[in-house]
Amino acid sequence: MPLRVTVWHEFRHEKKNATVAKIYPKGMHEAIAQHLRKSTDLVIKTATLDEPEHGLTDEVLKNTDVLTWWGHMAHGDVKDEIAAKVAKRVYEGMGLVVLHSGHLSKPFVKLMGTTGFLKWREAGEKERIWVVSPGHPITRGLSSDCIVIDHEEMYGEHFDIPDPDELIFISWFEGGEVFRSGCVWKRGAGKIFYFRPGHETFPSYHHPDVLKVIENGCRYVAPASEVVPFRASCPRIEPSLEPIKTVHVVDESIHRR
Amino acid sequence: MPLRVTVWHEFRHEKKNATVAKIYPKGMHEAIAQHLRKSTDLVIKTATLDEPEHGLTDEVLKNTDVLTWWGHMAHGDVKDEIAAKVAKRVYEGMGLVVLHSGHLSKPFVKLMGTTGFLKWREAGEKERIWVVSPGHPITRGLSSDCIVIDHEEMYGEHFDIPDPDELIFISWFEGGEVFRSGCVWKRGAGKIFYFRPGHETFPSYHHPDVLKVIENGCRYVAPASEVVPFRASCPRIEPSLEPIKTVHVVDESIHRR
Amino acid sequence: MPLRVTVWHEFRHEKKNATVAKIYPKGMHEAIAQHLRKSTDLVIKTATLDEPEHGLTDEVLKNTDVLTWWGHMAHGDVKDEIAAKVAKRVYEGMGLVVLHSGHLSKPFVKLMGTTGFLKWREAGEKERIWVVSPGHPITRGLSSDCIVIDHEEMYGEHFDIPDPDELIFISWFEGGEVFRSGCVWKRGAGKIFYFRPGHETFPSYHHPDVLKVIENGCRYVAPASEVVPFRASCPRIEPSLEPIKTVHVVDESIHRR
Amino acid sequence: MPLRVTVWHEFRHEKKNATVAKIYPKGMHEAIAQHLRKSTDLVIKTATLDEPEHGLTDEVLKNTDVLTWWGHMAHGDVKDEIAAKVAKRVYEGMGLVVLHSGHLSKPFVKLMGTTGFLKWREAGEKERIWVVSPGHPITRGLSSDCIVIDHEEMYGEHFDIPDPDELIFISWFEGGEVFRSGCVWKRGAGKIFYFRPGHETFPSYHHPDVLKVIENGCRYVAPASEVVPFRASCPRIEPSLEPIKTVHVVDESIHRR
Repeated sequence: MPLRVTVWHEFRHEKKNATVAKIYPKGMHEAIAQHLRKSTDLVIKTATLDEPEHGLTDEVLKNTDVLTWWGHMAHGDVKDEIAAKVAKRVYEGMGLVVLHSGHLSKPFVKLMGTTGFLKWREAGEKERIWVVSPGHPITRGLSSDCIVIDHEEMYGEHFDIPDPDELIFISWFEGGEVFRSGCVWKRGAGKIFYFRPGHETFPSYHHPDVLKVIENGCRYVAPASEVVPFRASCPRIEPSLEPIKTVHVVDESIHRR
Repeated sequence: MPLRVTVWHEFRHEKKNATVAKIYPKGMHEAIAQHLRKSTDLVIKTATLDEPEHGLTDEVLKNTDVLTWWGHMAHGDVKDEIAAKVAKRVYEGMGLVVLHSGHLSKPFVKLMGTTGFLKWREAGEKERIWVVSPGHPITRGLSSDCIVIDHEEMYGEHFDIPDPDELIFISWFEGGEVFRSGCVWKRGAGKIFYFRPGHETFPSYHHPDVLKVIENGCRYVAPASEVVPFRASCPRIEPSLEPIKTVHVVDESIHRR
Repeated sequence: MPLRVTVWHEFRHEKKNATVAKIYPKGMHEAIAQHLRKSTDLVIKTATLDEPEHGLTDEVLKNTDVLTWWGHMAHGDVKDEIAAKVAKRVYEGMGLVVLHSGHLSKPFVKLMGTTGFLKWREAGEKERIWVVSPGHPITRGLSSDCIVIDHEEMYGEHFDIPDPDELIFISWFEGGEVFRSGCVWKRGAGKIFYFRPGHETFPSYHHPDVLKVIENGCRYVAPASEVVPFRASCPRIEPSLEPIKTVHVVDESIHRR
Repeated sequence: MPLRVTVWHEFRHEKKNATVAKIYPKGMHEAIAQHLRKSTDLVIKTATLDEPEHGLTDEVLKNTDVLTWWGHMAHGDVKDEIAAKVAKRVYEGMGLVVLHSGHLSKPFVKLMGTTGFLKWREAGEKERIWVVSPGHPITRGLSSDCIVIDHEEMYGEHFDIPDPDELIFISWFEGGEVFRSGCVWKRGAGKIFYFRPGHETFPSYHHPDVLKVIENGCRYVAPASEVVPFRASCPRIEPSLEPIKTVHVVDESIHRR
């Protein structure tokens, strides 16, 4: 069964900044989508902020196994109800791949329960992304245990996230910082993969290893089939499975103990 | 230096339900506060939903090291901005002890990033709370590795929480269920302890071991002094610590690769 | 590519105890192997304690993707060097599924770094194994979120294991105990799944859900292909990736600070 | 009650290498011990490899709350039974602080269940140790969120350890690598803190922040008092807490299913 991936993108920088438009003439989402389309077992859609419902209608979300998310300058323009629907789909099992500045996006912040704050610097410095979890499926096809990106924005610790369930990559930056660059969390029945690279003014989404990790991430957070499902409700009284024999009588003297 | 604990309570059931009022004539918060006041190194305040700002003014929150939270029938009446202030204080280092039905409270749900859903049954059945982390400070003073509560509401798995950073207690219920009853998470610089018992129609907050665990929990999530602080901001450009020599020129041919 | 599973079994109880022989006339390993053989993408071997090198020659281990392990009365008869080879293969990526009393086996204890101690009782009581991680691939094909086993040995907390990387099942026992019954850890590039049921005098390995979980476990801990490999050495000096400009001169005055 | 810390040291380099002897004329252990002795609530002992029983008699271990461990050239000279006694004391609650090259020491490797392998380079390069867990007690008294060491040995990922229960520090190295430099694990009732710096030819144990972290680490892994203890045994039959009504009869037809 094919894996249905929806590549979501803010798609604003490309329209306003010539540098970004040069690097990503069809938009950053298309650079990612183009790579993913090479795999015949993946079915790729794209969706962008300025489409109706940000391109994430109930129908689209229902038919998405994995959603990737890049946003930056317009996090505030994402409607709360759409962010809530994304989170709900994650609870039900949809995978979510959050990229770069998506660390401050509404769905990510909501699912983490933290601020997502970090340090940053735009100096076009070198980044080395080290594998700290050899054997992990997300490292499939990498040429070595270190992805080198010649020019990137720096993201530095403290990155305000919950301790990740799995830490897969740590970045080294030329300017002196480190960063937890590849992290996995589970929320409900769904998995979330955060992957750091991808500043709009650098061609990171043309880097073969970065694209490979995004593809691997999509496969890793994909929902499993026929599993015990997430139980999306609470106010239901459970019948007893085993006989309950204790008879409870409120002891009025208790508060006088 | 004394530890400043604010015991927050919804304080509605006691006013509407005679059974609850009998068990907790001064309110559930007073049963907890009364126990905590026995320790001379703790300074105890209480705050309740129907006070102005729910009793959680900026002044109160600023001077609270640890906040305990019990709510149930009126989660929706808690103002969003107060819940947000509580979360912000946790990020800065304030400890939070969430009790029983607080699993659906606004601060807890916001900090977890999950629904907090679970199974439940009010049958007054027996609960056994087992220690799965011997040596943990939260188990201090317990008479054995199993707290027995004769009559409690059942909470059953799946409990929709992020995998806890520390799992300390697991409950067994007479009716056949299990539950992760004592969990710790870190969010920002603050720690959160969830502890299960405390249905309003049972005298659990008169149980010496339950009270002991709440006290231990308050001490465990208390902020440490003089530590590297949480950095409550993001949009600041970091100066480079090490020299950056790479010169970045956008390569216009990149998208044609 | 098929998944090569080696089902390892102590195979002693069956030869000495008529009850066990009645339930598992060909051995417990054959009950498991028989189920696994139904999947055409799995290639199943068995190996037992009393074979030369316990059936785990270098050739066998090299060609094993996933090893399952059941032992009980003869843990001490397993040679240290074979246990070490099993651990080494796990570091390199081989999956390990440890069953029931394997919690005290040499490979498991070595890989955990803990004692593996637990409470136990042979009373033929009812066990309920609850799913606490909905959506997890190991729950695939289960009919509900609770596996019921009518008669089993009890294992109770505290189970002396490192906090699992993933907790998937918690057991409820009729006699009052709870147990972390399904746990996953990573060691090196390999994954380990511990699954509790399987006392030799009960027919648990004829239970469809138990067999399904073992099969799912084998698939879950299977090594991924083409990944960044485990680096099975240490004493190698790394060349510098970036220029090092600091010149170090030992300051003899340092100890007088 | 004072905290009883035993500072264990291999104490061989100092006797053979003039550079090391210059930096640590009384031995590396004395540099650490000297700092710890400044705190009146700590009671400090030292013990070294070439003493009888490596200075770790049953009496010494019994009266040690926290043990620090530095070893490098003579890991193999540590007797297996002493390493086993150290591990046993950790299970019972003793804290263990493992320093630098102790990553290959017998107690650490035994408690981790992994190889402890890593990359290394002796080039006297700069190290930056970043705090990734603000608010953590182990960061107490640090002047900033980055400890700078001008000259150190490089340790690089992959560091073969189990995923730490808490990750507190990540190192950046001038030569391009990163490393998980401050990690906490629980084993039994005891806690282990690994802290990276401390190559014998550099004066890292004269660095105020490094000494502060070691002191904080000792306090953090110290056992709590009056807690539910580790249960250091297994072969005991538990009486049933709740009535067991199911009567088990072996069904001879089961294997014919």
